[in-house]
Order: sequence, then structure tokens, then C-alpha cells
Amino acid sequence: MRKVAVIGIGQTKVAENWNKSLRELAGDAILSALYDAQLSTADAFFLGNMMSSAANNQQNLGAYVTDWVGSRGAESIRIESACSSGSAAFRSAVLAVASGEVNIAVAAAVEKMTDSPGAETTAYLATAADADWEVDQGVSFVALNALIMQRYMHEYGWKHQDFANFSINAHNNAMNNPNAMFHMTITEERFNSSPLICDPLTLLDASPIGDGAAAAVIVPLENPFTSMSKTPIRVAGSAAASDTIAVHARQDPLWLSAAEKSAKQAYDQAGVSPENIDLFEYHDAFTIMASLSLEACGFVERGKAPELAIRNEITIDGRLPVATMGGLKARGHPVGATGLFQLVEVIQQLRGQAGKNQVAQPKYGMAQNIGGSGSNIITHILTNDS
Amino acid sequence: MRKVAVIGIGQTKVAENWNKSLRELAGDAILSALYDAQLSTADAFFLGNMMSSAANNQQNLGAYVTDWVGSRGAESIRIESACSSGSAAFRSAVLAVASGEVNIAVAAAVEKMTDSPGAETTAYLATAADADWEVDQGVSFVALNALIMQRYMHEYGWKHQDFANFSINAHNNAMNNPNAMFHMTITEERFNSSPLICDPLTLLDASPIGDGAAAAVIVPLENPFTSMSKTPIRVAGSAAASDTIAVHARQDPLWLSAAEKSAKQAYDQAGVSPENIDLFEYHDAFTIMASLSLEACGFVERGKAPELAIRNEITIDGRLPVATMGGLKARGHPVGATGLFQLVEVIQQLRGQAGKNQVAQPKYGMAQNIGGSGSNIITHILTNDS
Repeated sequence: MRKVAVIGIGQTKVAENWNKSLRELAGDAILSALYDAQLSTADAFFLGNMMSSAANNQQNLGAYVTDWVGSRGAESIRIESACSSGSAAFRSAVLAVASGEVNIAVAAAVEKMTDSPGAETTAYLATAADADWEVDQGVSFVALNALIMQRYMHEYGWKHQDFANFSINAHNNAMNNPNAMFHMTITEERFNSSPLICDPLTLLDASPIGDGAAAAVIVPLENPFTSMSKTPIRVAGSAAASDTIAVHARQDPLWLSAAEKSAKQAYDQAGVSPENIDLFEYHDAFTIMASLSLEACGFVERGKAPELAIRNEITIDGRLPVATMGGLKARGHPVGATGLFQLVEVIQQLRGQAGKNQVAQPKYGMAQNIGGSGSNIITHILTNDS
Repeated sequence: MRKVAVIGIGQTKVAENWNKSLRELAGDAILSALYDAQLSTADAFFLGNMMSSAANNQQNLGAYVTDWVGSRGAESIRIESACSSGSAAFRSAVLAVASGEVNIAVAAAVEKMTDSPGAETTAYLATAADADWEVDQGVSFVALNALIMQRYMHEYGWKHQDFANFSINAHNNAMNNPNAMFHMTITEERFNSSPLICDPLTLLDASPIGDGAAAAVIVPLENPFTSMSKTPIRVAGSAAASDTIAVHARQDPLWLSAAEKSAKQAYDQAGVSPENIDLFEYHDAFTIMASLSLEACGFVERGKAPELAIRNEITIDGRLPVATMGGLKARGHPVGATGLFQLVEVIQQLRGQAGKNQVAQPKYGMAQNIGGSGSNIITHILTNDS
């Protein structure tokens, strides 16, 4: 297996991008990434997307986007694993380059959600859950997360307010990210008085939907192209694991076994342990998912994630900076594209290009992207230490 | 890049499978393939599917199916490239195993189309075309193929009846395939009096939609598992290429440049030329696509594909047997699953397990899967010569 590195990144702003079509969003991110890599095309394109079939009446995104960016003829497929489609596309590109079959790959991911009415979007998001055994019983995605959070608070004795700093930190960090959806800080008071959307989840526990695209150019580490890049960022660990799609079928609904499994594999591949991780882009679709991810990855003991938030250990200068560019909560969660935003942000940090949010001299950055309510989880560890 | 082989195959019958859910269909094919390979699980699952989001309100098929077949925890993603999703899943599995990262991969593909009303299915299929520049103008998939066929007949002087043997051959071959949708022969008279669906396409030019799933188990060629398999079938060539998604944007709408490009790469990888191919599972979604595929792959000169049919060179004992188990036309076209059916059928032939349709001592079999109206084409060459 060849070692693999990222030499170009690109992203759009996450927003209600009314003036951009699905292909324009994807194209903007891909062309930025290629420009950043000083390339004009690639051999293969791996496109992550969750809901264009329903929201945009468009599938076959590979061909759709590849031609648009001027790479007609190149190999191109779409990858879908619900909310983890973005990092699944990245991992597919990594494997293709690692195999020796593809020399220059673009991993990109796009989602355009705001064209559809809210109720429809809720239904489209629910296709990530079990149609027969969850959705047809009336359970939405928010409801599943609320049930998990309810159980978590009951089991470990946390109150809703104990999760406040996850959201506050995300909003603070988004202030300095020009591509973030929200540029407003929130206070503990505001978090605590936030309207309930599904008990105990409030609006400020939840990430917003949005439109956006992100992309990365992936090449073999030993390659003439990497010498042109100031800082090739090596993919030190890449692993994916699954769990039951239905939450009720899990032995333990408070433990993300696919997060644990994929993180462990990624640590082993990179030869590191949680203490070596200098920043963590976690999947804070809801504060409860942020908590479960921190625990399953070994950053904190089971049932104790809110302690990290309460003690402010998750800020840019804390022990484990998370959501450094705003996270899903405040950068926004264009669902199938989110995983690639996370990876692009890790790379910004490892290159020292994170501006006011720069983590001090990071060596290893980790991103974990959660599909479904934990059914499909992909973990990557990247490093600037080639 | 490690050499890769298939050691297990499985498939369901293509039919209106009212009594099987999406996950049961996929599960039946995957468990058959694992049983055939004498394995009980795999490290990673690559699921091809086009329209479950719309037709079954279900995405996240990786996790959905992996748990169902008893492989909870394994890596799993869905691959989509419209009608070529099946072979895209196969190629993703091949690259994953070739990279050294995955040791046992299952490539599977499933489609359950007949739950939806016909008009909706036409709309779902149209998501493979360009939503802005084709579909919104009222062009369906059948219409696109009819326009191409009209032009082809005009350009080269063929009559509709000249395409008859493509369909007749497919129906003849399906008679001996227990998994085929249709078990009825058709005559030239019946072909010529078949009702028009979109001038000049008639019902008997077109393949039927259906429900079904197929699967293959892929491992490194040098592997303890292959020694357990009587006949590991080596993946000698695997290549994918794209074209414009919209037909009108092509320089030449009568030339499948992505078919030519991917076939050429696959020939080069396998070290063969068209003369060495002993059977060809082509993508006869419509007789015109069969014709264009034969030409672009170099089996016949441009504009002359119907000659192969008229001269009966495409039958089981002809110069180039095609659609040996019935093809899309008569085995059926469960759209996102079709590519894997093609590959499973090539493997049946190379193993000598094709029953009454067995091609005499084949060494190289080729499958070509066409996504969209030629926008995404994947070509594989397999061999029993390890």
C-alpha cells in the first residue's frame, strides 16, 4: 500500500446558497482544491453526497460534476453513507491512490439542502435511519438523538445545561471562519433558554442544515506533485466501521462501537494514541453525538464527556481543541459534505493556515464523521510529519 | 497493486419480488456469495444501488445490509453511478483489496424498483440524466435513447428490423437462466410488430425494470482463501471513464467515448485485444446501447454493429457471444444491480457453470456497464487463467 498525501484543499461557504446550483457548489470547491494543488485536472473523482436524489432530482453526480470542472472523461463515482458520505468519499480516494491504480484523485462532497421545504428535508434525512423499523414508526432523526440524550442524562446524571460549552465553543470558533454559516457567539444563558425541539434537545444542541461543498486533492506521498506543495499532509490513518442501522437493535445505545472500532484502527495505523491528537474535528450534529464520539475515541471516560466541556478543555488553547472552525454546530452541516469540511479544516490546521483559530504547532489532527445515528463511522488521522 | 480474484458469487432471481424487502434481496445475494466462497463474513462491503432513496425511502445501505447479513461492524458504503452502480461497487471493492487495506471484500448491488408506480420510476430513472438541461425539458431516459437511435439509423441507413437479433438472442439465452426475468423466445415477426414506445424504439428494444441483487467476494489472488476455491477468477482489467452527463453536450452523440476509453484501459491492463474476448456481457438496456457499446469496444467498425446481429455472430456459439444469460433485455435490468449481474454471469461462464449456455472453453470474459446515456462507463475483463 502506497503512502498517500493531500496537496490541495477547497471549500465553499456553508450557507443558504440560493444563487449556486448543486454543480456550481461542487465545482467551486473542486476547482479551488485543484488550484491549491497547482493542477488542472485529476484521474478520478470521488463525490460524496447524501440527498441530491430527493432534494435536487439529480443522481449520477460523478459524471455531472466531472464534466463541469473541465475533466470530462475522468473516472467518477458518487459515494453515499448518509451523514458520513463526505469522509467515505475521501477514504475511497485514499484507497484508490493507495492501490497504485489512480495517481491523482479528487475527493469532493456537496450538499444543497435548502431548496426543499423543511418537512421534506426531515424526511430525506430520515432515509439514513431504518425505513422499516424506525422511520415508519414515526421516529425522525432529531427524535433518535433526543432519545439517546435522554437516556445518557438519566444514566450518568447530567443536566441539559452541562452540554452548553460544546455549542458555545463551536460558535466562538466559527467567528473566525469566513466559510462558517453562523457568525454569532452564544452565551450559557442563551443556551439554557433555547427552545426545545425534542425533549431534551434544544435548538442550540442541534447543527443547522446548509448548502456547501468541500474538496481535497490526494496523491501518492512519493510523487513529483508533492514536491510542488509546500506542505503535503499525509493520511496517517483511515478506517471505517459500521453498527446496526436501527438504534434500538444495539446492545448499548450509549456506546458508538463503530466510532471506537474505526478510531482504534486509525490510531494503530498512525502509530499514535489519543494523547497524541492535537485537534479533533468531531461530528457534533447534536451535543450528544459530540459527547459519545469523545468517549468512544478514548479522549475521556465513558459517561464523562460533558466534563471536558465544563472544564473548557475543548477550546483552541485547551487540552483537546475540537470543532476548531465551528464544527457542524456553527460552521454548518451540509449533511453529505460535512465529512470533507472536517478533513479540509484539519488540513488547514496542520498547514498552519487556520488564522486566528490556529492550534499551536499541531502534528496530528483527527476527524470523525458519523453516518446515521452511529451506524457508519469513519475516522481519519492526518499529519504534517511526512 | 496486488492482484485480485473473485472466489464467490451469488444472485437472486430478477423478477417482481413482492415478497422480499430491499435488505432481504441484498442479503440473499451476499449470503449466497459468501457461502460459495466458504466464508461467513467479510472485512468490507461495497453496495451498488441507484434508486433506494426514492423508491424505498432508504439510504445508508452499507450499514443497513451489513448488519442484516451478520457482519455488524464491518466497513460498508454505498456506491452510485446511476445504471453503472453495480460495476462501480465491484471496482471499489477491487481497488480496496488491491490497495492492501482490505483483505476480504464483498461487492454487492441491489435494486427494488417495482414497489413504485411506473411514472414515478421513470422520474427516478431520469435522475441519471441532467436535471437542469435534459429532464426539466421533458426528456425521459427512453426518449434520450430513442433520439440517439433515430440519429444512428439516419446516419448509417439501418432499419429498425435490423436490430431484431439483439433482442432475439437475449431472449433465447434467458430460456436457460433460472434467474432471468423472462422465459419466452421472441421471433423476428414479433419484434417487428412490437408496440412503439418512443419512435423508433419499441417495447422489444427495451429492457424491463425488475427487483434483484447480485454479489461477489473479492480477495487478493495470493491468499489462503483462493486455494480453497476451485476456480479463482482473476480481475485482469478494471477501468472506468466518464462523458458529459447531457447527451446534447457531446461532440458525437453516436460514439460512447467513455466506453472506448474504459475498454482500452481494461484491454491494456489485461494484455489482450478485442479478438481475445470469448464472451461479452454488454449493456443492452436498449438495442441501440448494445450497438454503440460493441462499436466503442472495437468489436466491429463504427456504424456496423447491426451486422453482427444480422449475421448471428453474437449467439453462444458465434464469434462473440453476448448477453449469454439473457442480458439486460431478458434477464432483466434492476438498474443499480445490473452491473453485478453481468460480472457474476461472466464468472459463471469462466468457471464453466453456465449450463446449457456455456460458451466453449472461455478464457477471457468482459463486462461493460453503462451509467446514464453513456456518461459513466465501467469495463471489466476477467480470466480463469491465473
